[in-house]
Amino acid sequence: MSETPSPSLDSARPDYLSRIDGPADLKRLARPELRDLCDQMRAFLLESVQETGGHLGSNLGVVEIATALHYVFDLKRDRVVWDVSHQCYPHKILTGRKARFATMRQTDGLCGFTHPAESEYDLFHTGHAGTSISLALGLAMGTSHEPDPPCAIAVIGDASLGAGVAFEALNNAAASGERVLVVLNDNEWSISKSVGSLARYLSKIRSSRTVQRANQEIHNLLTSIPVIGSRVDRALEDATEVMRHALVPGHVFEGLGVTYVGPVDGHDVGALVETFERVRRLDGVVLVHALTDKGKGHPQAPTHPERVHGVKGTAKIARADSAKVVGKVAVAKPLTGPSYTKAFADALVKLAERDVRVHALTAGMPSGTGLEEFAERFPARFHDTGITEQHAVAQAAGMAKSGLRPVAAIYSTFLQRAYDQVFQEVALQNLPVVFAMDRSGLVGQDGPTHNGVFDLAYLRTLPNMTLCAPRDATDMQRMLEFALRHDGPVGLRYPRDNCPGVERIQPRERREIALGKAEALSEGGEVVLWAYGALVQTALEVAERCARRGVEIAVVDARFAKPLDEEMLARDVQRYRYLFTLEEHQRCGGFGSAVLEAVSRFPNVRASVRVLGLPDRFIEHRTTREEQLAEVGLDADGIERAVRFALSPKLV
Amino acid sequence: MSETPSPSLDSARPDYLSRIDGPADLKRLARPELRDLCDQMRAFLLESVQETGGHLGSNLGVVEIATALHYVFDLKRDRVVWDVSHQCYPHKILTGRKARFATMRQTDGLCGFTHPAESEYDLFHTGHAGTSISLALGLAMGTSHEPDPPCAIAVIGDASLGAGVAFEALNNAAASGERVLVVLNDNEWSISKSVGSLARYLSKIRSSRTVQRANQEIHNLLTSIPVIGSRVDRALEDATEVMRHALVPGHVFEGLGVTYVGPVDGHDVGALVETFERVRRLDGVVLVHALTDKGKGHPQAPTHPERVHGVKGTAKIARADSAKVVGKVAVAKPLTGPSYTKAFADALVKLAERDVRVHALTAGMPSGTGLEEFAERFPARFHDTGITEQHAVAQAAGMAKSGLRPVAAIYSTFLQRAYDQVFQEVALQNLPVVFAMDRSGLVGQDGPTHNGVFDLAYLRTLPNMTLCAPRDATDMQRMLEFALRHDGPVGLRYPRDNCPGVERIQPRERREIALGKAEALSEGGEVVLWAYGALVQTALEVAERCARRGVEIAVVDARFAKPLDEEMLARDVQRYRYLFTLEEHQRCGGFGSAVLEAVSRFPNVRASVRVLGLPDRFIEHRTTREEQLAEVGLDADGIERAVRFALSPKLV
Repeated sequence: MSETPSPSLDSARPDYLSRIDGPADLKRLARPELRDLCDQMRAFLLESVQETGGHLGSNLGVVEIATALHYVFDLKRDRVVWDVSHQCYPHKILTGRKARFATMRQTDGLCGFTHPAESEYDLFHTGHAGTSISLALGLAMGTSHEPDPPCAIAVIGDASLGAGVAFEALNNAAASGERVLVVLNDNEWSISKSVGSLARYLSKIRSSRTVQRANQEIHNLLTSIPVIGSRVDRALEDATEVMRHALVPGHVFEGLGVTYVGPVDGHDVGALVETFERVRRLDGVVLVHALTDKGKGHPQAPTHPERVHGVKGTAKIARADSAKVVGKVAVAKPLTGPSYTKAFADALVKLAERDVRVHALTAGMPSGTGLEEFAERFPARFHDTGITEQHAVAQAAGMAKSGLRPVAAIYSTFLQRAYDQVFQEVALQNLPVVFAMDRSGLVGQDGPTHNGVFDLAYLRTLPNMTLCAPRDATDMQRMLEFALRHDGPVGLRYPRDNCPGVERIQPRERREIALGKAEALSEGGEVVLWAYGALVQTALEVAERCARRGVEIAVVDARFAKPLDEEMLARDVQRYRYLFTLEEHQRCGGFGSAVLEAVSRFPNVRASVRVLGLPDRFIEHRTTREEQLAEVGLDADGIERAVRFALSPKLV
Repeated sequence: MSETPSPSLDSARPDYLSRIDGPADLKRLARPELRDLCDQMRAFLLESVQETGGHLGSNLGVVEIATALHYVFDLKRDRVVWDVSHQCYPHKILTGRKARFATMRQTDGLCGFTHPAESEYDLFHTGHAGTSISLALGLAMGTSHEPDPPCAIAVIGDASLGAGVAFEALNNAAASGERVLVVLNDNEWSISKSVGSLARYLSKIRSSRTVQRANQEIHNLLTSIPVIGSRVDRALEDATEVMRHALVPGHVFEGLGVTYVGPVDGHDVGALVETFERVRRLDGVVLVHALTDKGKGHPQAPTHPERVHGVKGTAKIARADSAKVVGKVAVAKPLTGPSYTKAFADALVKLAERDVRVHALTAGMPSGTGLEEFAERFPARFHDTGITEQHAVAQAAGMAKSGLRPVAAIYSTFLQRAYDQVFQEVALQNLPVVFAMDRSGLVGQDGPTHNGVFDLAYLRTLPNMTLCAPRDATDMQRMLEFALRHDGPVGLRYPRDNCPGVERIQPRERREIALGKAEALSEGGEVVLWAYGALVQTALEVAERCARRGVEIAVVDARFAKPLDEEMLARDVQRYRYLFTLEEHQRCGGFGSAVLEAVSRFPNVRASVRVLGLPDRFIEHRTTREEQLAEVGLDADGIERAVRFALSPKLV
């Protein structure tokens, strides 16, 4: 039992929330009490998430869905898969984790997503969209031979349903004969054109009450007509099928073999309980279409969501980064330069002013990728495809082929979703598509589903690919300019952090950005640090520290992971005794491996090459990126330690 | 003009085919002549493809579609994207490449797919399914500002339409306002349950003529009813929308904002020409639903395709590997052992006999992956999801979570399509899913779209992943057994080739398969070859050749690329002067890089490590895999050359 009393909207009502330590407690409540419980959960969420940070709106939206699911089903036996799982907070409250909410997304605290290590009610640790139906189908397949098989349930948002994998799953599940319950959490925020025609279709269902009434009239009319001869008789018989499609609002789903139920009010917990009870024994795939308000109960929630959607570039965002509250306790790094995101976005706007061929694409993350200003300035050249990275990348290839210069701003971790399109549509055709890979590296509170730490490995192996990373805002501008000039695909990576506030080398003193050319920032001594991207700044800090101890350390900004500056590298492995590579990426297959591969081909090598990067494990969420970097020895302390260990006789 | 006269079905008719050297010649024909031309093309295809090998059925199916498109559109200005593009042969005939058909898929000959290097009419070089609509949309976006913009056309098969990316594209294209023509080539072969409910829906459209007639009756009835008061009046007004859905067979597409036209007979070239002329000026996304027979005109084409689909495990296959004719001129390697595919399939059947938890999955390739016997023996444990790798992998994760031991047999190149699911659903959860990656390495005639040469890089960087490769049929069996015992994801790679006929080490004398343990096959001398998978055999051959010259070469079967046998590796880099790594994979990020990474951490290293693998470019199609291996120096000659170069003083 939680020790902190839960805030209640109405203090005259019993405090139901404090009685809930698990689903068994929930089941002891009478149905009419559920509504008050939901109100209390909502109040608790409002207070606690504003304290800790996290996804507020999406969680406020599913309070009743989570409650009704736990009330009707036995979710230790039946299985629920939360798509993306950023909306799992009510589920966590109901499964005994309320007392730990103050630790949400903090080091050693609750994870912001479902996580099997936390609870037996969490089946998967996810953060990417669209796979819940596939997972639920797989679960159903493992138990369907049982006499009374448990129910496999997927809760999926309307934006996630637009992801191709969700369609693949519906298509397969419907034909499989397995029993899967899909709860479509349609939060009415996808009215925006940008998320496609499925969203329009859903909105049409929502607004179809008049049409539904009309259908009823026709139906009555038809059945009341006296049968005139056998031709019409037969026609009417055949018409049953036709009318079913016409009368059921979800005929697209029905057309795909899914039993459509709804729409139901997703905030009427009683109606949800009744609906789930009614459908729980149905065979096949049942889709319950629940209408919810994202941010329900939030004082600032828009009363007219359409207005929000009318603004270009603020289309619905269902991603981890969106509509997220930055909590009070989140330790912000002292503001230094602009965020890399902003540096990118500003640079892109500038370049787009000069070149009308420049278009920007995002897959559901207009805000996270910083493209709002671009969208406002160049609405016709801004394209938000919704959560459809595969399509976005293939579309960008088509655009490039027709003479445009598309910049696909997709987080490193989400670009994984379009790997085959990066391969076939872009790299194999050698088309000039720029991939702006935000959130490359460690991301702090979101954890391993959002760390962007594989991109160098999966992109570097593809021929024709150019990979580079800016160390600060000045180089961001120049590198993006280079990328847009380059006649082939370019992957530009940068982290979720701020650029250095002080740029150590003045812009006019820098080496120009040229394909495969590194920049030596300092020389001398026996150790050289070859750093990639944001870690150049850390390398400079390490060099300064060592200088204070009287030890010279050279620093190179590699700039390109592909192609490498092999000329400078060949010189450095002869000149220095130790060459360290630094990258915020897995040690397997990243920038350091590129250096090792090149060095293995050099005839004369004096230096020992040491690869500093992320260890071969998933890095869990921490309060800050800095903490994660320190944990894996990629902060200045860790790198200095590694250097001193190599040089121990001199430094110790 | 082709010099060989084209075979004609009816020698009394003019030989239209010989007049066609490009679309301009086609446009000179009168409409009634098109039918004869199509017959002649079909006859030509039958003869030439049976000679050279290639995709026969799918090309016979689109003769009229290709002809009508080139007749109606100016495809130098308008753009057509062939999905997968294995059905591009009629398009190649019509664009001046008929004379080169004898070279199809041979070294320096015509590519089996569209290829921009071959013709200005080929926009993209593709081989993976589902992206044509995205590409066409991207093309449209680049020209929609023009006063009379060209038409962007995607031709996509019904199986490819089930791929998630195609759904993402339709969803986006319909909402984009761009003009895109989608030609759905529905070859009626997807009646199989295994390709999902979309296929069922399409088949329902096909069989809905009765229903359509019925609809017409109701429509007449409704409009003839005298208006009784204003309520019904309004109802009827509202009903327009409802009835439109009811009357149009493609209401699922209409629901998604696509203008559905059809179904039309895809072999009636006159009807196609009329249809394309009618829709070419329509705005938005128009989907023309053309019904075709795969293999139309082939003497062995099934007259009742349903029968074919009724057979479990021979579900529709729309992939490059399927329904493919192996041409007479294809130089077959002398049969040695069974194919790796068969070795895998046999091993899996054996293991499935012992363990009911073993299930097999394929994404549209039951035949190519050798799973036909499995499907027949264990129909309830065999799952063909159609061309939906993302879903297949996520579903496998769900199955593993519920206690099953799924084996996902997916070609290396197609697993790229599910990269994010391998990451999130499998590796991050550390679930025991076995990936059987057939066609790993070079594939000969299919070329770069089908070479499986990136898997080590993109999988190795993921934590929890175990990667291994058998050198022969005995190890295939043992390694698969190991993989099914292992408590985490395993990627097993093997090439499109035969196992060695003679296994040099007797099964009982082999080292057991154990996680991260290599097997030393021979020792001594100054050079050791660390080979991975099928190249172990080549390494042994090189060692034999060197032995005949009196030079001892040691050979290690690395078995695991992750985790590496670091103990044996540490020993070998001290013991030998040269350590060569051999792999049929890009040199960037593969097995050799793994060795370099490990060696960079060893304190005592005497050996120089040389990585032998594929160069950083796409390897074009060749008549055989052997030829490709020779081209990149990965045959015995090339490896011997590399070894001799290192040891030159002794060997020369």
